Amino acid sequence: MSAPLHHARPAAGPGRALPDTQQGMRRRNLARVMHTVSAEGPLSRAAVASRIGLTRAAVSTLVDELIRSGLLEELGPERPRRVGRPGSALAVSGHGPAGIGAEVGVDHLAVCAMDLRGEVRARAVRQTANRDRAPEPVIAELRELIDQVVTEADGAGLWPAGLAVAVPGLVARDARTVVRAPNLGWQDTDLAALLPARWPLTVGNEANFGALAELWLGKEAPRDFLHVSAEIGIGAAVVVDGRLLYGNRGFAGELGHVPVHPDGPACPCGGRGCLEQYAGEEAVLRAAGLEPGEDRVGLLAARAEQGDRAVRDALRDAGTALGIALTGAVNLLDPQSVVLGGALAGLAPWLLPSLRSELARRTAGPACPVTVSSLGPEGPLLGAAHSVVRGVLDDPAAVSELA
Amino acid sequence: MSAPLHHARPAAGPGRALPDTQQGMRRRNLARVMHTVSAEGPLSRAAVASRIGLTRAAVSTLVDELIRSGLLEELGPERPRRVGRPGSALAVSGHGPAGIGAEVGVDHLAVCAMDLRGEVRARAVRQTANRDRAPEPVIAELRELIDQVVTEADGAGLWPAGLAVAVPGLVARDARTVVRAPNLGWQDTDLAALLPARWPLTVGNEANFGALAELWLGKEAPRDFLHVSAEIGIGAAVVVDGRLLYGNRGFAGELGHVPVHPDGPACPCGGRGCLEQYAGEEAVLRAAGLEPGEDRVGLLAARAEQGDRAVRDALRDAGTALGIALTGAVNLLDPQSVVLGGALAGLAPWLLPSLRSELARRTAGPACPVTVSSLGPEGPLLGAAHSVVRGVLDDPAAVSELA
Repeated sequence: MSAPLHHARPAAGPGRALPDTQQGMRRRNLARVMHTVSAEGPLSRAAVASRIGLTRAAVSTLVDELIRSGLLEELGPERPRRVGRPGSALAVSGHGPAGIGAEVGVDHLAVCAMDLRGEVRARAVRQTANRDRAPEPVIAELRELIDQVVTEADGAGLWPAGLAVAVPGLVARDARTVVRAPNLGWQDTDLAALLPARWPLTVGNEANFGALAELWLGKEAPRDFLHVSAEIGIGAAVVVDGRLLYGNRGFAGELGHVPVHPDGPACPCGGRGCLEQYAGEEAVLRAAGLEPGEDRVGLLAARAEQGDRAVRDALRDAGTALGIALTGAVNLLDPQSVVLGGALAGLAPWLLPSLRSELARRTAGPACPVTVSSLGPEGPLLGAAHSVVRGVLDDPAAVSELA
Repeated sequence: MSAPLHHARPAAGPGRALPDTQQGMRRRNLARVMHTVSAEGPLSRAAVASRIGLTRAAVSTLVDELIRSGLLEELGPERPRRVGRPGSALAVSGHGPAGIGAEVGVDHLAVCAMDLRGEVRARAVRQTANRDRAPEPVIAELRELIDQVVTEADGAGLWPAGLAVAVPGLVARDARTVVRAPNLGWQDTDLAALLPARWPLTVGNEANFGALAELWLGKEAPRDFLHVSAEIGIGAAVVVDGRLLYGNRGFAGELGHVPVHPDGPACPCGGRGCLEQYAGEEAVLRAAGLEPGEDRVGLLAARAEQGDRAVRDALRDAGTALGIALTGAVNLLDPQSVVLGGALAGLAPWLLPSLRSELARRTAGPACPVTVSSLGPEGPLLGAAHSVVRGVLDDPAAVSELA
């Protein structure tokens, strides 16, 4: 992790990457205060001190600095019921730095601004057909939405602490280059050259941001899980001990090209019988005898709901193929659970039975639990925005340098 | 990682798990000095100071403490060529704390004592048939070897800082319970109850210790790799950014039960067509028309060397199956390389061609490199002993509490 902080992949915990000096210790302790208030606030200074194991005097110095920087605020006596001693409770500020999240989808663009409390305060979405469209016009359109959201956020007293962009493709570890996004037709595209330079930028894979959203915003999300999602392809992301696994080139989580039937149909990746040949959106539509069009997942879900036998069979078989691929993944990674997110979440009722039974019959002992994400298709966008917010919580001292 | 330090899984770097207080900072800096001298010594105090970014005065205080504890020693002027200023150079001590490594194999028991410099100073090996033998007599025999090695080490001025035991099975995250070791016939066995209580104990999977040995002692070992090894079963271990991935229950790396041909032969694990059904030692012997006996790998290697067609074909097919399973693993993990270790290293000349070509034809872009470990079958034993040594380097201050 040699990248500067706001470009960096999220660290294992508050400020872990900071240098081990007096100054680094102060910054880590500022991060501890922010994380504690963020997770458990409103809290009094004394409660913060007892939770992080520092003296109350030390905590007060840190808190004063965070209030001066506009990252924490003192709640007035107008909320007497929420804490024991009115006026003394601290909360994360709803003003000041915000995370700007953006998503480039095959069929849409979306941007949002999230405050430090994790609330989305401005949002813009546009339906656009981005398949095989050059990066320049797509990003130009995305910039319009970013400008719109930043202006709206400014009106609410928020300023961008960074921009994070989710894309449906492989992103290099520099967190700016899209190495391959087959459904957009992009290859080796440096998005940093096309996006505003005035904020720290992180470009990331949508499945990765979806998994981070699950980790940070999901209900009772485990710390070790495999997050499986789909738009056109099948993506996965591996979270180990609360950390996203990126892989050497940044390409980890390519579940879609795990061989399921090694002698099966040829896949554009060069392999044979990859999972996408059985459980990818296009494969499922083909197996169900449907034409690809707009809102493909919605179409499949609606038909399955109506009891369409061909669609239900196609989804059952896709679930079986997912179960085979996940057996291998679970054997390798031993996660606490598998979470189905993104488009797969909407199809879960018809995928899950065959998926679970395949996993169970191939597993010695209790099979790994498979659950469905509560975040739905917005996961990657929220994860992107929240990754910027996390960057501020992880090193609040860096924000005053940015402001 | 809530376990006490010497029982704990190795941390990401020097002393990362230590508390963030003045005292914790001192302990982390002691660890930095030890790691720096260990990796690059002999070094002068000034050289250590410049490498870890502390003042020379601060480093001198830390060094004096480490010399007093017997963990560092000052080299006399008898080595004038190795450093600029004779007499001022520091080296890790070849006396004092040692790591005791032990290995329970299906066909043998082994124990060694390793000093802080990483040199094996005492060793004992015994051939024994442990298959389906109860844990009590096996561990009783292992204790005899441990006593023998500890006595020999004592004669060389070394005392045990901890004991680490490698076993061919799944080990729970408590690092003491063998959950399942099919080839020994052990299940839910608490080895801590059978082993000496007077030293910190870590029980671990042999494939994991083999991978750690590769990481710490291998030639130009990468920081992100998949280590594949075999005794009877096929084990793997995943190293990410210099850290071993344990998984939720401690079971990560079960490559042997990744489905290769999902409709293939039934496997004792409950699955079908698992990798072990194609590339496990017994499967290969069966395919080659040979009887399982002692030194099975040696037999296969000798026959293949002689040009035995059936053996070569069996190994080629095993390589193909490994290539299919590794395609999935590489897609999920995106490692820098795959390293074949343990028994597989000796069979590499006949496994590698088909393994590499299978991986290449299933991979878009350049295939993940596959290399062969230089450590051979002793990897797990050395990794176990070195894990104790790492524990001392990671928190040298803890040693004085043990001594």
